[in-house]
Amino acid sequence: MTELDWIDISVPLHTGMVHWPGDPEFCISRQSDIQNGDPATVSRLCLGAHSGTHMDAPAYFFPNAAGIEAMPLETTIGPARVVAIEDPAAVRPEELEQHSIQYGERILFKTRNSGRVWKKKEFVQDYVSISKEAAEYLAQLRLRCVGIDYLSVGGYDHDGADTHLALLRARVWIIEGLDLSSVQPGDYDLICLPLSIVGADGAPARAIIRPAAPTTSPL
Amino acid sequence: MTELDWIDISVPLHTGMVHWPGDPEFCISRQSDIQNGDPATVSRLCLGAHSGTHMDAPAYFFPNAAGIEAMPLETTIGPARVVAIEDPAAVRPEELEQHSIQYGERILFKTRNSGRVWKKKEFVQDYVSISKEAAEYLAQLRLRCVGIDYLSVGGYDHDGADTHLALLRARVWIIEGLDLSSVQPGDYDLICLPLSIVGADGAPARAIIRPAAPTTSPL
Repeated sequence: MTELDWIDISVPLHTGMVHWPGDPEFCISRQSDIQNGDPATVSRLCLGAHSGTHMDAPAYFFPNAAGIEAMPLETTIGPARVVAIEDPAAVRPEELEQHSIQYGERILFKTRNSGRVWKKKEFVQDYVSISKEAAEYLAQLRLRCVGIDYLSVGGYDHDGADTHLALLRARVWIIEGLDLSSVQPGDYDLICLPLSIVGADGAPARAIIRPAAPTTSPL
Repeated sequence: MTELDWIDISVPLHTGMVHWPGDPEFCISRQSDIQNGDPATVSRLCLGAHSGTHMDAPAYFFPNAAGIEAMPLETTIGPARVVAIEDPAAVRPEELEQHSIQYGERILFKTRNSGRVWKKKEFVQDYVSISKEAAEYLAQLRLRCVGIDYLSVGGYDHDGADTHLALLRARVWIIEGLDLSSVQPGDYDLICLPLSIVGADGAPARAIIRPAAPTTSPL
């Protein structure tokens, strides 16, 4: 591996952070604390499987389907492309067609979310999501994975289930909650590793990228 | 990156799994479930920061010290060496000297733990740990990180604090809870990504390795 710097595109986890409405909140508390005279500080964590930067597994929407532990590692390790989306409301097939997305790519969408939503303490309802039609377009291309820069690939009050269903049915694994604000569109190496939780509908993940070396082929 | 297969050296997380005595148990429960007619399955997670495969940060033993989110990514991404330990009780300086460990290496110890402890449902007290003297030896070498194949680098009833203190004081980041049972000693590329939890004494992590390419220099 080269010495090029990796860029963290995960959001830091902390108590009180924004979360999907109705989902469990992220909370860290101290079971013991050296500041109180304990021999070590040990924290307890409570969170939803879809907290912060995380991945969705087929088990999220399909009974008896694969949990997050079943994801092949090559799904989220390897060349990836950060695609800039201009549409202020949704990723749509018309805009996707301009980007010549290829079969089996790893695609991360950088939308206006990245510069906007992570600065707010409150949940943002009008984030840019992936339309049902765009999800079907990406499903046909059998992407290895698709990423988005807020907490869901589906809209808050539209296409939520349909977008997930189209992607997960086609075994397109979903990365949500990315912060792409410091990243330019282009070719990268991606590493996204979710926790391996048996049978889980999703799991928190750490995601990092680095600019692709000039000699690296795009796929 | 090459096409060589990555090997998962993380332990899968599931309810009832072995944990450090007194630490919070890992628990996954369903907040909603498609099998019960809900629109999607959403899980809630409760766990200790030192569950399963995880990392320790300086904040574990030092007040106002770095939390896990402050770990530089290069700490756990890059060339690493799996070193076989023959001693059935502890990693000791005498055995380490045979392995010519170099300044700044990433070292994962494969002990008799790997073939033994992860098969048991109960916590194993007599696991192989790193002696205080070996920790001081490794601290002087300023390893980037050190990994062990059970839940602590320190012993259950000896050297627990001393081993951690020696390593963390020297900014040697600690990976615990690895399963190296399927891995031979030798040179690898390592990726270990802990969740980025602000101010945390540790965090669950996903760790993977692949054999180092013959053309890769060892450091």
